[in-house]
Amino acid sequence: MVGAGQLARMTCQAAIGLGVGFRVLAGSAADSAAQVCAGTVTGDYTSLSDLLGFAAGCDVVTFDHEHVPAAHLAALERAGPAVRPGGAALRYTQDKLAMRARLRAAGVPCPRYAPVTGVSEVAERAAEWGWPVVLKAVSGGYDGRGVWVCESPEAAAAVLAHPVAVFAEEHVRFDAELAALVARSPHGQGAAYPVVQTVQRDGVCHEVLAPAPGLAPGEALLAQRIALDLAAGLGVTGLLAVEFFRTPDGLLVNELAMRPHNSGHWTIEGARTSQFEQHLRAVLDLPLGDPRAAAQCVAVANVFGGTDPGIYARYTHVMAADPSVKLNMYAKSVRPGRKIGHVTALGDDMPRVRARAVRAAAYLATGRE
Amino acid sequence: MVGAGQLARMTCQAAIGLGVGFRVLAGSAADSAAQVCAGTVTGDYTSLSDLLGFAAGCDVVTFDHEHVPAAHLAALERAGPAVRPGGAALRYTQDKLAMRARLRAAGVPCPRYAPVTGVSEVAERAAEWGWPVVLKAVSGGYDGRGVWVCESPEAAAAVLAHPVAVFAEEHVRFDAELAALVARSPHGQGAAYPVVQTVQRDGVCHEVLAPAPGLAPGEALLAQRIALDLAAGLGVTGLLAVEFFRTPDGLLVNELAMRPHNSGHWTIEGARTSQFEQHLRAVLDLPLGDPRAAAQCVAVANVFGGTDPGIYARYTHVMAADPSVKLNMYAKSVRPGRKIGHVTALGDDMPRVRARAVRAAAYLATGRE
Repeated sequence: MVGAGQLARMTCQAAIGLGVGFRVLAGSAADSAAQVCAGTVTGDYTSLSDLLGFAAGCDVVTFDHEHVPAAHLAALERAGPAVRPGGAALRYTQDKLAMRARLRAAGVPCPRYAPVTGVSEVAERAAEWGWPVVLKAVSGGYDGRGVWVCESPEAAAAVLAHPVAVFAEEHVRFDAELAALVARSPHGQGAAYPVVQTVQRDGVCHEVLAPAPGLAPGEALLAQRIALDLAAGLGVTGLLAVEFFRTPDGLLVNELAMRPHNSGHWTIEGARTSQFEQHLRAVLDLPLGDPRAAAQCVAVANVFGGTDPGIYARYTHVMAADPSVKLNMYAKSVRPGRKIGHVTALGDDMPRVRARAVRAAAYLATGRE
Repeated sequence: MVGAGQLARMTCQAAIGLGVGFRVLAGSAADSAAQVCAGTVTGDYTSLSDLLGFAAGCDVVTFDHEHVPAAHLAALERAGPAVRPGGAALRYTQDKLAMRARLRAAGVPCPRYAPVTGVSEVAERAAEWGWPVVLKAVSGGYDGRGVWVCESPEAAAAVLAHPVAVFAEEHVRFDAELAALVARSPHGQGAAYPVVQTVQRDGVCHEVLAPAPGLAPGEALLAQRIALDLAAGLGVTGLLAVEFFRTPDGLLVNELAMRPHNSGHWTIEGARTSQFEQHLRAVLDLPLGDPRAAAQCVAVANVFGGTDPGIYARYTHVMAADPSVKLNMYAKSVRPGRKIGHVTALGDDMPRVRARAVRAAAYLATGRE
């Protein structure tokens, strides 16, 4: 697995259970997965020679992020190991404009969007869609962000002042954000997890509720169908997470990810097959595992760093207060706002389950409930 | 953790989730846990300097087996890190005669036993108890065994011919073998898992059924009570597994283990807190996790090596035939009869759940159902 963040860390746990050899390409020995994975290789994923050196002796190469340059992916595929997902699929996570065009061509409902190069084009879109207008980086971004909600031409101009290609998208008013996680293996088998609700603040996922509360069965099926069709249509191998806006007019696709996804962490304890095991099974072309839930309601709350790095001192309170809440910590250094773990609660009443997860995560982060 | 077998391997998975640093002292880099644990130190647990070197910088030292010499345990305890369980408790797993005496003194029901040094003493016991008589090594054993069921004086003489101290025990006719797994932390908190049935053949555990079928609630409570009392009485920190014979006259204690135990593997997927996480929480003096089952019925079947080392080639069939069965493989080299993994099935009907686990384990081992 190229990349050694928390997704690789949790994939490492799944690989141990399956008894398959697993290594990570880590930028640093301090990376979340590098701290725990015996098969850690240190290197730079933007260096083709590091990538090829890492891949030598691997049967399959997969990824914990989508940032490997497309030319390197192509070279890696020529070099021998199976690359899953392949560059042809990963392109749609690296080039959001290409992704939007592909989705539109496939008839998948999306927000309205348009390429823009200057403020006047943004203003034209706003005249049709209304303010705010969302500007999205075609690839990457700056200051750690790739999405800007612009309330005015001035705000758009500030974004456009950066040397980053962007496109404009209508600002969708939604009831909820949903995510559909599916797996697809090279021989074409697909498996769909229950559809979840993600609760985001400032573009950052704070909570995941599985299954999404208040969803009509038809909506869940539709979201799963769209995700399975996209996985097949784009030739994804491994996991595909599709994020949706749920609007009064129906579901709109917001983002795609082709890897284990933040919205799928609930599956570690909450589904018969965790997304990490499922990703491994898919990229290894093994039959997929049962994606069904193992509990009636599952809630995940992400743990963000606060100003006090002493997380461990707070384990005692969190564990004593709720012996059933599950901690999944990433062993990342604590910085304010940095995601350093998640907690999972399971039960049969979503409001209570959610409150337990939120309370534990808040206490871990801040020492307060 | 001293020792790097499959118990350390599965404890490593739990440590990753908790975000606590974890290292193993492995005899070889090929050991089951050494293959996956980033914190592997190679060394010999019978060497005090290796032990002390490994323990330097550890806050807590614990064990995946009970073979560290008592004098080394004492030296380790003097050297600084918390040793959990401590030597005073581990003594009762290293000296079975001391364990029997301690249990008898505590009024815990056990098989009748007697120290023996010669065949005539064995014959005297047999005159009272009847043949066969069980001979047990006080500590260790030979040829990988520590228990011999002797049908005759000649068979007993063959065992006594070895330079291994043994004692005699009555051969108990039992309806079932049970195991009660509890955890105890240094500050005295206890937690008891549901009581399970173990299905043994030739002294080797083949299956575990959780909860034990057909157990009266009072029997389960009694087994848990005995285990919790023993954990407190012996000053155990970490897990204590107590194996019982269930006889028409009641429960008799057979063996003790102070570590994650083969009879507790069902907890990985089948309980809210796995035994491996629970052991870590206990030895780290963190509040214990919820030991309750997460499914109505859980069955584990151990996977033994056959003559064909190509286990991985059989994953496809096992996973396709039953997408819900969970594989836990130890990445040990395959030798006939060697335990190389276990599979877990969950559901609501024990005979079906058990059949699924047994079928998957048999196919992995032999390529036949």
